[in-house]
Amino acid sequence: MNEKCMELAAQLVPKTFVKVAKDASHSREKQIENLLIHVRKEGWDDISIELLLSQLALMDSNNFMGNCGLGEREARVASSLVARRHYNFGHGIGRSGDLNEPQPKAAGSSLMYKLTNRFLEDLFKLMGIQSTVRCILVPLATGMSLVLSMMALKSSRPGADVVIWSRIDQKSCFKSISSAGCRAIVVDTKRNGDQLETDVEGILKKIKEVGANKVLCVMTTTACFAPRACDNIEEVAKLCKQFDVPHLINNAYGLQDKSVMCRIQKAQRVGRVDLLVQSTDKNLMVPVGGAIIASFDEDLLQTVSKCYPGRASGSPIMDVFITLLHLGKSGYLKLVEERVEKFKLLSEKLREIAAGIGERLLESPQNPISMAMSMSKLPADELRSYGAKLYIRSVSGTRVIDLMEHKIICGQEFKSWGSSTNDYDVPYMTAAAAIGVTDDDIDLFMKRMKKIFGKNQ
Amino acid sequence: MNEKCMELAAQLVPKTFVKVAKDASHSREKQIENLLIHVRKEGWDDISIELLLSQLALMDSNNFMGNCGLGEREARVASSLVARRHYNFGHGIGRSGDLNEPQPKAAGSSLMYKLTNRFLEDLFKLMGIQSTVRCILVPLATGMSLVLSMMALKSSRPGADVVIWSRIDQKSCFKSISSAGCRAIVVDTKRNGDQLETDVEGILKKIKEVGANKVLCVMTTTACFAPRACDNIEEVAKLCKQFDVPHLINNAYGLQDKSVMCRIQKAQRVGRVDLLVQSTDKNLMVPVGGAIIASFDEDLLQTVSKCYPGRASGSPIMDVFITLLHLGKSGYLKLVEERVEKFKLLSEKLREIAAGIGERLLESPQNPISMAMSMSKLPADELRSYGAKLYIRSVSGTRVIDLMEHKIICGQEFKSWGSSTNDYDVPYMTAAAAIGVTDDDIDLFMKRMKKIFGKNQ
Amino acid sequence: MNEKCMELAAQLVPKTFVKVAKDASHSREKQIENLLIHVRKEGWDDISIELLLSQLALMDSNNFMGNCGLGEREARVASSLVARRHYNFGHGIGRSGDLNEPQPKAAGSSLMYKLTNRFLEDLFKLMGIQSTVRCILVPLATGMSLVLSMMALKSSRPGADVVIWSRIDQKSCFKSISSAGCRAIVVDTKRNGDQLETDVEGILKKIKEVGANKVLCVMTTTACFAPRACDNIEEVAKLCKQFDVPHLINNAYGLQDKSVMCRIQKAQRVGRVDLLVQSTDKNLMVPVGGAIIASFDEDLLQTVSKCYPGRASGSPIMDVFITLLHLGKSGYLKLVEERVEKFKLLSEKLREIAAGIGERLLESPQNPISMAMSMSKLPADELRSYGAKLYIRSVSGTRVIDLMEHKIICGQEFKSWGSSTNDYDVPYMTAAAAIGVTDDDIDLFMKRMKKIFGKNQ
Amino acid sequence: MNEKCMELAAQLVPKTFVKVAKDASHSREKQIENLLIHVRKEGWDDISIELLLSQLALMDSNNFMGNCGLGEREARVASSLVARRHYNFGHGIGRSGDLNEPQPKAAGSSLMYKLTNRFLEDLFKLMGIQSTVRCILVPLATGMSLVLSMMALKSSRPGADVVIWSRIDQKSCFKSISSAGCRAIVVDTKRNGDQLETDVEGILKKIKEVGANKVLCVMTTTACFAPRACDNIEEVAKLCKQFDVPHLINNAYGLQDKSVMCRIQKAQRVGRVDLLVQSTDKNLMVPVGGAIIASFDEDLLQTVSKCYPGRASGSPIMDVFITLLHLGKSGYLKLVEERVEKFKLLSEKLREIAAGIGERLLESPQNPISMAMSMSKLPADELRSYGAKLYIRSVSGTRVIDLMEHKIICGQEFKSWGSSTNDYDVPYMTAAAAIGVTDDDIDLFMKRMKKIFGKNQ
Repeated sequence: MNEKCMELAAQLVPKTFVKVAKDASHSREKQIENLLIHVRKEGWDDISIELLLSQLALMDSNNFMGNCGLGEREARVASSLVARRHYNFGHGIGRSGDLNEPQPKAAGSSLMYKLTNRFLEDLFKLMGIQSTVRCILVPLATGMSLVLSMMALKSSRPGADVVIWSRIDQKSCFKSISSAGCRAIVVDTKRNGDQLETDVEGILKKIKEVGANKVLCVMTTTACFAPRACDNIEEVAKLCKQFDVPHLINNAYGLQDKSVMCRIQKAQRVGRVDLLVQSTDKNLMVPVGGAIIASFDEDLLQTVSKCYPGRASGSPIMDVFITLLHLGKSGYLKLVEERVEKFKLLSEKLREIAAGIGERLLESPQNPISMAMSMSKLPADELRSYGAKLYIRSVSGTRVIDLMEHKIICGQEFKSWGSSTNDYDVPYMTAAAAIGVTDDDIDLFMKRMKKIFGKNQ
Repeated sequence: MNEKCMELAAQLVPKTFVKVAKDASHSREKQIENLLIHVRKEGWDDISIELLLSQLALMDSNNFMGNCGLGEREARVASSLVARRHYNFGHGIGRSGDLNEPQPKAAGSSLMYKLTNRFLEDLFKLMGIQSTVRCILVPLATGMSLVLSMMALKSSRPGADVVIWSRIDQKSCFKSISSAGCRAIVVDTKRNGDQLETDVEGILKKIKEVGANKVLCVMTTTACFAPRACDNIEEVAKLCKQFDVPHLINNAYGLQDKSVMCRIQKAQRVGRVDLLVQSTDKNLMVPVGGAIIASFDEDLLQTVSKCYPGRASGSPIMDVFITLLHLGKSGYLKLVEERVEKFKLLSEKLREIAAGIGERLLESPQNPISMAMSMSKLPADELRSYGAKLYIRSVSGTRVIDLMEHKIICGQEFKSWGSSTNDYDVPYMTAAAAIGVTDDDIDLFMKRMKKIFGKNQ
Repeated sequence: MNEKCMELAAQLVPKTFVKVAKDASHSREKQIENLLIHVRKEGWDDISIELLLSQLALMDSNNFMGNCGLGEREARVASSLVARRHYNFGHGIGRSGDLNEPQPKAAGSSLMYKLTNRFLEDLFKLMGIQSTVRCILVPLATGMSLVLSMMALKSSRPGADVVIWSRIDQKSCFKSISSAGCRAIVVDTKRNGDQLETDVEGILKKIKEVGANKVLCVMTTTACFAPRACDNIEEVAKLCKQFDVPHLINNAYGLQDKSVMCRIQKAQRVGRVDLLVQSTDKNLMVPVGGAIIASFDEDLLQTVSKCYPGRASGSPIMDVFITLLHLGKSGYLKLVEERVEKFKLLSEKLREIAAGIGERLLESPQNPISMAMSMSKLPADELRSYGAKLYIRSVSGTRVIDLMEHKIICGQEFKSWGSSTNDYDVPYMTAAAAIGVTDDDIDLFMKRMKKIFGKNQ
Repeated sequence: MNEKCMELAAQLVPKTFVKVAKDASHSREKQIENLLIHVRKEGWDDISIELLLSQLALMDSNNFMGNCGLGEREARVASSLVARRHYNFGHGIGRSGDLNEPQPKAAGSSLMYKLTNRFLEDLFKLMGIQSTVRCILVPLATGMSLVLSMMALKSSRPGADVVIWSRIDQKSCFKSISSAGCRAIVVDTKRNGDQLETDVEGILKKIKEVGANKVLCVMTTTACFAPRACDNIEEVAKLCKQFDVPHLINNAYGLQDKSVMCRIQKAQRVGRVDLLVQSTDKNLMVPVGGAIIASFDEDLLQTVSKCYPGRASGSPIMDVFITLLHLGKSGYLKLVEERVEKFKLLSEKLREIAAGIGERLLESPQNPISMAMSMSKLPADELRSYGAKLYIRSVSGTRVIDLMEHKIICGQEFKSWGSSTNDYDVPYMTAAAAIGVTDDDIDLFMKRMKKIFGKNQ
C-alpha cells in the first residue's frame, strides 16, 4: 500500500498502529531494493518471495487492469489452477530472436529472468569461480542445452562438425552430439587402479587426426558415476588452447561441488574453456527442466542466447528464482557442506557393507559425488536382479553395471555400456551422495542393502 | 480412502453418513476410470483435477514414503513453494533416449504425459482431423519445436539440408531453419488483391533448382498476420508428394480454427504432410512454453521423440493436462465458436473505425484469425508512433507495418520486414481475434483507437 | 514495488517497459485507495484480492521482519499449510474488551475487520435498508449470535429475563434463549389458509401477562421453512414500541431477499427494531461460522461488541471480506435476482410434480425462499422414508414434516416439531431456493423426485 | 486411485512401474488407517496432510458430484479463493443441538472433528494427565469458552450465580463472568516475596460467606504474567471438593508446560476439577480462534457441547487438525522442551540486562512461562514510554506495569490493574518465553533492550 493508502488506513485504525505497520512494510521494500542493487545473502521467507512474485507479475501486461490484447499471444490462461501455479505469469521468457532479450509485454518476467541469471553468476563465484563468468538459465534440460551450445559453436566455426568426446556413458550426452548435427569421435577412458580417467593422449591424437579446424569442440565431463573420475579438464583445456579448439564442459552436476568448480577455474586459467552446462535440477533441487549455460566469454554466451529461436517457458526460471531466494547464499553453502559430509558417511557405510559380503569400495578419489562397490562375488547373470530388488524396495538412483550390455547409439557401438569404457573387468554398483541427500536416505539404503545382500554375508 | 478406512470411519461417524460419502467417492473414482479408458467430454471441476494430480504425484518415487534416493537426480525440491506449484511432481518427462518413454522413477508423470498426448489427439479430431494422427507435447515453444522437427527429418534424410520456406515474417520461424543447421531458400508471397498468397509456382521452381533429394522439407505456415493468407497447403502438399519431399507445417496458432484444420486434413488427403507444429499457449491458453508436434506417421513422430536428448520439463505438460481436463471437449469447442464470433465483431468494428478515418480493412479472406487495416493516409514516418501510442495505453498485440524495415536475419535480407513480402505498397496495422479474446478486449480497443485516431476523423 | 525499486528495475529492463508497468501498478494502488475511501461497485479479480490480503497481512506484527515476540500470544504458526490458508494472518480480531477495537499487534487484521463491517453496511443499503444501520460481523454462527444479542440486551435491562418468542421450529434458535440465561414464552403461530402466521394478539397478551419490564425482548423470525410465513414484524415492532420492549429479529437468511429487508425497514419506521441477526453462510455463500449483528442504534451495537469477552477468530471475517470483494455490489445483486427466478422455477416444477401425484403446493405467499408440498396421500408412517430416499440420492436440504414428532427442548414441550405450530393437519415436504441455487440443482431434484414418487403417479 | 484405475494405468505405463507406485500408495492408505485406529506418533508431511484433507472434504455433501441442494444452507461457496482456503469444506461443525453431534450433510467434517478431539485427548496424556480426560475443541477463543463453561455449570446448578475468582488481570477473563450472567467475587492475590500467590484462605472465607450452594464455581488461573504465580490449584481443588463447589480452571496457556499439567493432574487427584479451558493459539501455534474445553467428567463435557446453540465454524478445528498431524506427538514434545530451554535463556539474559541497569528479575518460581524485571529506578511517570519504545521497535508481548492504572470493569474496581493485586510496590516489565519463541526473538529483544535502557547503564 502506498503512502496515500496508509493515510486513509489511519482514519480507520489508530495512527500509531499504522505507523508501525508502515515502517515494517518499508523493510520489505528495502529488501527488494537491495535485491535489485545486488545485495543478497540470507534466504528469504516465503511471504517475501510470494510478495515479490506478485509484484513482478503485475508488471506483465496480462495482469494490467484494462489491458486489451489483440494479438495471437496474450498470455490468457484458461484454467485458474494453471494461472495460480504460475503466479499469474504467462508470457514465458525471451523475444523471438533472443532468449535474453526483454519482452515488451512482460517487464516483470524479463526482470525475473535478469535477476535469476545474476543470482546464478553469484553462485558460480560462491562455488569457487574467480574469473568473470556469465550465465543464462535455459528452460531445457542438460542434453538439449549441450545441443544448443554446440549450435552456437557451429555458427562461429563453419565447417567444423566433429566433437571429440571423452566417453561418459550417459545416453543423452552422447545423443546431443548427433542431435546437434555433429559427428562424435569417442575417446575411451583409461583405467588407473580402479579409477577410469581421461585419455588425454587419445584426445590429442584425435585432434591431430581430424585436423583442429574440423573439430567443433572437445567435450569433457566432470560429474559422473564412479569409478569414472572427473575428466582431466585442466590438461584438455591446455590442448584446446594449444590447438585453438573450443572446449565444452558437461558439468551436469558439478556445480554442487567446490572441488569440481575449482578445477574448472584452474582449467580456464591454464587453458581454454568455452561453455559449461549444468543441470538446475541436479544442482539446485528444482524439478527437471532447466540448465545453466555459462561462459567466460560474454559474446559467445550471447550467441548461445540468440541461437534459441523464439520464446521459451518461464517455469524453470521461476523455480530457480524462488529457490535461490529461499536458500540465499548461506543456505546453498550449507547444503553443499552437508553433502560433503553425507558423501563421507555413505562411503563409510558402504565400505562396511562391502566388507561384510566380501566386496570392496572401488577407489575413485577424483569422483567427489558418486562411488562404486564391486560386485565380483555374485554370479554375473544375477547382478541385474539386485538392481530390480533395490528398485521395488524404493531405492532409487543406484545402478548395477554388469559389464554385459553392449549398445549401439546413433550408429556408434559401445561395449560394457554404463561403465564408460570398453574393458573394465569388475562389475559394480554405484550410489551417489548428491545435494539434498539425508541421513534418512543413507540409513534406509543401508537397511535394504543388508536385507538384500544378507544371505551373502 | 479405501474400504478399510471407510469402515473405520463408520466407527466414529454414523454408518449411513459414511455410506453416502462412500458412494460419492466412488463417483470420483469412476471419473478417473473413465478418463483412463478414454471417456471424457465435459470439463472437470478443480477439486477433481487437483485430486487426480495428487494421486498421480503419489505414483512418483520422490513422493513415496520410505523412498531413499542415492542417485544424482532424485527430484528433491528445496523450496516448498516450488514443490507446491508443481503439485509435488519433480521428475519431468522422458528418459535419456526418448521424450515419450516412461520413466521408472516416475510412473505418475509418465502416465500424465501419455494421457495428455491422448487428449491432444482427441482435440485434433474434434477440430476436424479425421485421419489417424499422433501427437506429442514437447516442452519447447514453437521455434524450437520446428528445430526438433527438422532434426528428425534430417536423421532420415541424410544429405538434405535445404528448407524451402514460404515467407512468413516471424523471426523465430526463420531462425529455426538455421538453428537446425539448414539453409533456407525463401519464396516470397504473391499478392492477390490485398491478400498475400503462397507462390506455389515459386516453390516448384526452387524444388527443381535445388534438386528434391537436397530438400529437407518445404515449410509452410497456416496462421499468420493478415493480409498474408494461410499458405496454400493443399497445393504444396501435392508438390511434396510428387517430388517425395517432406512437408513441415508451421501451424502455430491454427489449431484453434476449424477451417485451418480442415485444410490440413485436405492437404493430407491430396498430398503430403509430414509434421505439424502448434503452440500450446497460442491455442490452449496456457503460459508460453510448449508445442504440440503432430504427425500422421507414427514412426516419424517417434523419431522426433527420440531426437530430444534427455529428460525435459514436465511443467508445460501439466499446464495442458489441467487445462484440457478443465475445459473438456465441450469447453474447448465453446471457446472456438466464441472466437469465430469475436472475429466477426472485431472485423465490423475495425471496418467502422477505418471508414471513419478514410482507411479500410484489407481483404484477406483466407486469414481467419488476423485482420489488417490500411494506414495509407497517415504520414509514413509517423506510423510507428501509433504503435507506441497503443502500447502505452495497454493495447497489446497489434502491429504497425510501415513497410520501411529492412532486416538481415542469419545472413538473409528481407525487405519490408513484417509484411511477408518484398513489395507491398499499403502500410497497415494488424489485429487478431485469437482464442480467449473477449468483448471487453474489443470494446477497450475501439475506445483507444478512437482516441488515438480521433484527430484524423 | 516503490518508486526506487522501479528505477532500479529500469536499469535491468528497458525504461519504457518499466514505465508501462508502473502505470499499471498505479491502477492497482488506486483500486485500494478507492476501497479505503469507500468506492466499490464491481467485483475484484483474484489477483487484486490476494494482493490486498498480502498487503494487509504485512501490517500485522507477526509478519514484520525483525519482530520479536515476547508475549504469550504472538501469532506464531507451526504449520505452513495453516499459515498459508490464513494468508499469514494470525491475530484474529478484537482486543480483550471489545470485538471491534483495533488490535495494536495487528493493524492489518483490524483494518480488514473495519472494512468488512463497512461493506456489510453497504450491503444492507443495497438490499433496501434506507435508515442508517451499523453492522458487526461476529465469528459465531446464528444461534450463538442470538445469545450474544440477548446478553447485550440484558446488560442494559436488568431484571428482565423473559423472551417472548414467535414459534419457529429451529432448535438452535430456541436453545439460544436458555443459553442466554433467559426464559422463553412460546407463542404458537396461527394458521391462515395453508400459511402459518404470527399471532400478534398472542404476543400482546403475553407482554401484558409478564409485564413489559420483565420482558427482555420479543424475538421474531423472518426467513423460515414454509408454510410458516415471515413473521409480521411490522405489527410486532409497533407493539414493542408501544410497550417499550426490545425487538430482536432472527433474520437468519433474510438478507438475501429484498422483500424481507423492506419489511424490516418498514418495521423500523413504524415501530421498534433493536437487533437483527443474519447468518453469513446462508446469505453470503461462505463456509459456516459467522453472523452479522446489525442495529439501527450504534450504542446498542457497541454494547454487543463489548459483550464478547476476548479476541475471536478472524477466519469468518476473511471469508466475507474476500467474498464481498469478489462479488462486488453488482455481483451480489445478480445472485439475488437469479435467486428470485430460481424460486419461481422451483415453485412451478414442484407444483407440477405435486399435481402428478395428487398433491399440491401449499400456499405461503409471505415466504419468499421456502416452499412446501403436501404429502397427504402417502401413508403417514412412510413419510420419513421418503426423506431418507432423497438423502441417499444426494438431495440435501429438503425436509419431510410428518407432524408426528413431539419434542421437549430445554424443558419446553413442542407438538408437531418441525411445523412451528401445535396443530397443523397436512404433512408436507419443504424445499428452498436459497442464494446460489442453480438450474442444475433444480433439474437433478426433479429427476430424483420423479424417480422416488414415480410409483405414486 | 483404486485397483481398477491402477490396472488401467498399467496399460499406458509399464506394469512394474505401476506396481511400485501401487505399493507406495498403499503406504499412504495405511497411514490413514493407522490414524483412524488411533496410531500416530511422528508428524506427517504436507502431502499426506493435504491428501487426507481432500479425501475428507469429498465426504461432505457439497463436494458430491451430482449433489443437489434444496435447503437454506448447502455450503455453496461464492469465491474460489474462499473454497480453496477451506480445502472445500463448508459445513462447519455441529448440528443444531450439539457441537459434537455428527452432521448428516458432512461426514468428512464430522470425522475431522472427532479425530481432532481425540488427538487433543492424546496431547493431554502426553503432557502429563494420567486420568481419563475428554476434550472438545470449540471455535471460540478463551474468554467465550469460559462463558460457555459457566453456562454449562449453570444448567446443572440452578440458583448458583456467584463466581469466586482468584484475581488475574486479564480483562476478557474477568468479563467472561458477567457475560455468563454471573456475579464475580474477587479474591486478591497475596504477596510472598516477589511472587503473588493464591489467597486460599480468602477463597475459603468467601465460599462460606456466600454459601456454597450459591457459588457457581471457583475460577483459578494457571498461566499468567509474572510475578503472579500459577494458582494453588491443588488447595483450591481440595476446598471445592470439601464444599461441593465446581472448580473451573482457566488454563489458557498452561497446556504447553508439563509442570502446570502435572499440577492439574494432582489437583484432580486430591480435590475437584470440573472444567479446564485452554487456548489453541497460545498452546498449539494456530491463528486465534479456538479453545479446548476439557473435563474429567464426560457428562459435564457433553453438557458444555449441548450448550452451544447451532453449528459453528470449522476453521479453527481444521487448523488444529493440520497442526497436530504436522507436528505429531514427537514434534509437539520437541517444541515443549525447547520452550523450557528458551525460558532459561531468556531469564539469564534478562537478569543480566537488569543487573546492568540496577534492576533485578523478580522471583516468581511458580511461573514457568512469564518473568518480570523490576523497573524501580526509573521515574514512575516515564515507565509507560518504555513500553511504547519497545512497541515501535517491533518488540511485541512485553508489558510495563507501572501500578498506576486504576480500572473499573463491569462495575468492579481494580487498583494497580495489570498486577493482579491491589498493593504491589515494585513497578516492572514482563516478558514471556512461550511455545515457539526462538533464539532470534531473544537476541533481538536483548539488543533493543540494551538500546533503550542503555542510557541508564
